[in-house]
Parts: sequence; structure tokens; C-alpha cells
Amino acid sequence: MPDSTVFTARLDRVRRELAATGCDAVIVTPGTDLRYLTGLEGGSHERFAALVVPAARAPLLVVPKLEEPEYARMPTGDLRAELVAWQDGADPYRLVAGRLSDCRRIALSEVMTARDLLALQDALAPVEFTARPVVGAVRIRKDAAEIDALRRAGQAIDRVHARMGEWLRAGRTEAEVAADIAAAIVAEGHVRADFVIVGSGPNGASPHHEVSDRVIEAGDVVVVDIGGPMPDGYFSDSTRTYAVGEPRHPDVAVTYGVLQAAQQAAVDAVQPGVTAESVDAVARDAIAAADVAGGEVDGGDGDRQDQEDGPPGQQEAEDHHAEADQRGPQVHQEDGATVRVAALQQAVVQVLLV
Amino acid sequence: MPDSTVFTARLDRVRRELAATGCDAVIVTPGTDLRYLTGLEGGSHERFAALVVPAARAPLLVVPKLEEPEYARMPTGDLRAELVAWQDGADPYRLVAGRLSDCRRIALSEVMTARDLLALQDALAPVEFTARPVVGAVRIRKDAAEIDALRRAGQAIDRVHARMGEWLRAGRTEAEVAADIAAAIVAEGHVRADFVIVGSGPNGASPHHEVSDRVIEAGDVVVVDIGGPMPDGYFSDSTRTYAVGEPRHPDVAVTYGVLQAAQQAAVDAVQPGVTAESVDAVARDAIAAADVAGGEVDGGDGDRQDQEDGPPGQQEAEDHHAEADQRGPQVHQEDGATVRVAALQQAVVQVLLV
Repeated sequence: MPDSTVFTARLDRVRRELAATGCDAVIVTPGTDLRYLTGLEGGSHERFAALVVPAARAPLLVVPKLEEPEYARMPTGDLRAELVAWQDGADPYRLVAGRLSDCRRIALSEVMTARDLLALQDALAPVEFTARPVVGAVRIRKDAAEIDALRRAGQAIDRVHARMGEWLRAGRTEAEVAADIAAAIVAEGHVRADFVIVGSGPNGASPHHEVSDRVIEAGDVVVVDIGGPMPDGYFSDSTRTYAVGEPRHPDVAVTYGVLQAAQQAAVDAVQPGVTAESVDAVARDAIAAADVAGGEVDGGDGDRQDQEDGPPGQQEAEDHHAEADQRGPQVHQEDGATVRVAALQQAVVQVLLV
Repeated sequence: MPDSTVFTARLDRVRRELAATGCDAVIVTPGTDLRYLTGLEGGSHERFAALVVPAARAPLLVVPKLEEPEYARMPTGDLRAELVAWQDGADPYRLVAGRLSDCRRIALSEVMTARDLLALQDALAPVEFTARPVVGAVRIRKDAAEIDALRRAGQAIDRVHARMGEWLRAGRTEAEVAADIAAAIVAEGHVRADFVIVGSGPNGASPHHEVSDRVIEAGDVVVVDIGGPMPDGYFSDSTRTYAVGEPRHPDVAVTYGVLQAAQQAAVDAVQPGVTAESVDAVARDAIAAADVAGGEVDGGDGDRQDQEDGPPGQQEAEDHHAEADQRGPQVHQEDGATVRVAALQQAVVQVLLV
């Protein structure tokens, strides 16, 4: 856990963000926002728990009595936060409402459940709640400790990818390969394997495919999208595309090259003051300029080639693509019809934080 | 996955529940409610996806285009559901609002995120959203297939507990014991270990303690609270209390016996038509009647004895205590002050579904 000065600095930044966005308080329920502010993610979601940060008063840590011992590990003293435990049978939403009765606009962690939000709306009406990511806006700028943590996560998943040749072989099922990868993710320092996608041949066309019992064949192109949390809570998330032997499709190298060049152009375009949208446009334009629209990619499995776009929340640490994670664009393939490579223009390249 | 008649029957029950509760529709985002209705939990929460069930029209499965191939595995044909995929850049909330413009009261899955709920409230204003658990009310009554699934989960975690003597030894840390238990949870048929709490000595007093590097000592009482999902999605969740050799506290057997008798009395009180509250009261009364309030439990580690109450959502399948899971009450211990056994009156016994 970082030392307490890290947490007090983060809390100060949250207060400044509240002031800048016209919010009177933010309610942070268990999850990564809470861990960012206190070092611990907090308990289950069964019972309401939250760090309540008013813009102009001391924070309040509202927790179920049952889970108080765990929450007592949070640096409430350093944060000058009051710990308030509620017993089963009490109404934690009224408790929060009583402390925020002078607020008119309240932000919240976006992972708060609808159940909690409806209860808070009821208890605090007519307060306006906003999904504006106050803590997220603070988290998007990484301090040195976070950049180090992301680099370690990226290096750990790189070590897993470096061993892919041990497992990814013709004649094995996606599920068998995935089990080996999952074990290696843990062996290389992660707490657990959070997702292991092995999409071979036609399955590669579904960006969020997981695994199946499909037997991998020689010549398959295989998408491997893997990651998990490190002990400090930061995630790896790395997708690479492999060919099992010589790719069956003669055009794979060309289309892969187009995507790779487009991604590199996008990476090169990243700099302070540039929008993610403009970086995205650089990648799309590079693909369009490659002028492969008249060609077709065709082969045993089918041929639409597509690429996953970056998740909306990618700037969040738990969904972060460390620099080392991205080595090349993905090539997805879909069963069925012959589709023009013009579909490549739909491709979006994941934007790196640099 | 159950055959499609199971899903159509469940959808019919949801429609009846909508009618009975005066709701015009329910919006079910990814999670166990969605799996209950379609066989699949659905994708990540990054992009909005939901099964929308109007009371009087065909269901609508709204999914991100990116994840459409995975959602296409849902039995939309059997459910007569329309699959609507939205592209990045489109507004899925407006899309849903367009289909529900005649609704006045809408229920939702309680795991929906606050981000989704705020966006839906904005798009559908002035519709009333209710946290009333429409799908939950259907799920609370288990069909034969679900009871079988819960029994299998209970048997799997029983097999893990049966092996506890292999791992739970003086001189080992909680974390070491937990690692062995986690591996056994998977070996005995679970998809993964979802939680492994090993609370020895003083740590046993924190019901949601996880593990620490505390070295377990001879004479410790140890709370082991473990479980995880089976391949069919149903969870085990079983807590047992172990003594490592002869308990250091001479009173452990007596107080444990009081709790065990109270739990048995509560189990015996469970029958159709009885409230959970009244079953809880039976347990509390049994503890009060044991008349141990004048005694004290005192020992090396401390002495408050307490017991975790059941989670509010325990009737949900993923948070279910199968009958075989409960063998005896827990005895938690806390470091520090000497507390009267009157504290036992706070104990609540987990209610079993029978």
C-alpha cells in the first residue's frame, strides 16, 4: 500500500475536482476508485459502504458494522475521515442523507449499483446526482507510483506472451491452451487470470470471444487477449495475434501489416493536448490510405478482418493498456461470407497512454 | 445450459411478476439475472447491454455490435426476442427509451450500474424506476434443476471441507492454508475459488476477514469460509469452524454448543409461510435461553464471540447456502477486551432454503 501522503494528495485532488465541476460531494462505493483513495477496495456489495467526500468538510467512511474490522485498516486518521458503522436494520442511506443535507449536486463512483443509487435518490431528493467521473478525472493522470505499477503489470504479461510457443500448437483445443496460459499468468506474478481469450480461426472474429473446444489447426490465425490484476491492483491487458505455422491466408501478412502501420501511426500521434478521437482518426486514415479496399481476404475460415476498439474506460488503471502490452494490431476472422477488406476501415486502434 | 423451455417458462413468470407489481417493463443488464433468463451472463459492463422485457410486448436484446457474436448464442429465437446491436457512437439509452416510451414504471436488475441508471433516467424521464426485484422475486423460488445445481455445489464444497485436516495445521500461515484450499476448490469441480477466508485466533472475530500471514497456533479456533461458482453458475458458500487440536479456551465447546443448538432450532423452524425474521428470532431466543450471559469467554486471543448473519441476498442463487453447507455455527474471536457472552445475543444464524 502506498504511504499515507499519497492518499492525502489524492483526496486533495478530488476536492479540487469537486470545486471545478460544481459538485458538493462525491460518494465512492467499493471498487477501484475506493482503493485509489484509501488503499483498499472495500467489502462486498451486499451492504452499503462508501467513502463520502464533501467538498468542504471532513470525509465520512460509512461501513456495515459487520465489516468494520476490515475497513479499520483504511488510513482514516491520515484522511481525517470519520468512521461510521451501521448495524443491520439501520438505514445507511438516511445516515448519508443526514450528513449531505446541504448538498445540491452529488457525484458518485460509476460502479455504484442501481439499488444504492435509487435509495440515495430517495433519501436525498431533490438532490441532483451526476455520473460525471470526479474520481475518474483525477485517476486519469497517473503519478509516478502508478506508472511503475502499470509497467510491472505490462512486463508480467509480456513474460506470459513470450512463452506462447510452449502452448499454442495445432491439435490442441482453445480451452487447453487457455488453461496453460491462465496458470502462467499467475506464475508470472498476477493475483489471478482475469480473462483468457483464445480465438482461433473463425472465433478470432469475435473480439470478446472467450474459449471453445475448437481444435486449433495448422495455418490458423489466433487472437490471444489476456490479463489480470497484480497484487497492487493494477491490471495487465495484452492482445496479440499469432499464426500457427504459415498462415493459411496469403493475404494475412499484408492486411496485418496495414493494421500494424496504422497502429504505429496512431501511437506516434499521441501527445499532450491531442484528443483520443483525433488519434483514432489517424489510424482510420492510415487504413483508408493503404488502398486495399479492392482486394479480398478469403480463406478456409472466412475473411472479415476487424479489430477491437479500446474500452471506453481504458484510462482507468484496472483497464489499462501498459505501453509494453501492445505489439501489433489484432487480426480477427469470422466464419462465413466473403467481405471486402473495406471492413478494415471499421478498425480502431487502441490508444496508448504515454 | 438448460433447454429452451426452461427459459420461456422463466420469462412467463417474469411477465406475471411485472403484472403483479404494476411494472411496465424490466431492464436486465449483464449478471446472474440475465444468465437466469438466457443462459449467459452477458459481456462486460463497459458498454450497455440488456435484455428489455416489456410486460406486453416481445423482449428486446440490446447489445454492443462489438459483442454481438457472443450474444447471438442466447436463445433469442425461443424467447421471441429481437436482437438489436448498436455501434460505438450510437446512444443505446435513447434506443431503449424509444421502445419503452409508453412505460410509466420500470424495474431493473439491481446490479445495473449507476452510470446506466442515470443515463436511462435521463433518456426516459419522467418514468419511475424501481429497485423492486422483479427477476429476483421469480428466482427466489427454485425449480428442480436449480435445486439439483445447488446440491451439487454443496457437495463439492463439502468435499473440500472433508480434506481440511490435510492443510490446517499449527505452524502454517493462514495464507498458506488458503492457497491449498483454493486449489482444492477448483480440483473438486468449481470454476474458481471465489473467496477463501481463513480467520485464525483473533482474526476469526472479523466475519469478512480474508487471510493474513498470521501463523496458526495449536489451540486456535479457526473460521474457514469458502466457496465459488460451479460451471453452471451456481455457487457454493460454506463456513465451518475448526479447532486446531484442543481449543485453548475451555469454554469454546460450551458456547459453540449453544450456537449449534440455536442454529438447529432455527433450521427446524423453517417452513412455508414463515418469515425469515421469525426464524432469526428463534435462533436469538435459543441463545438468550441458554442463560450463559453471566459467564465470560476468556483466553489467549481474546473473547468476543459473534456470528455472521446471512447476507441479505442469500436467496439469490449465486449467494446461496445449500443445505449441505451448514454444519454448525461459527465461533468468531476477537483480540482485546473481555466481553460478556451476552454478546452472543447478537448472533444470527444463517437461514437455509429447504
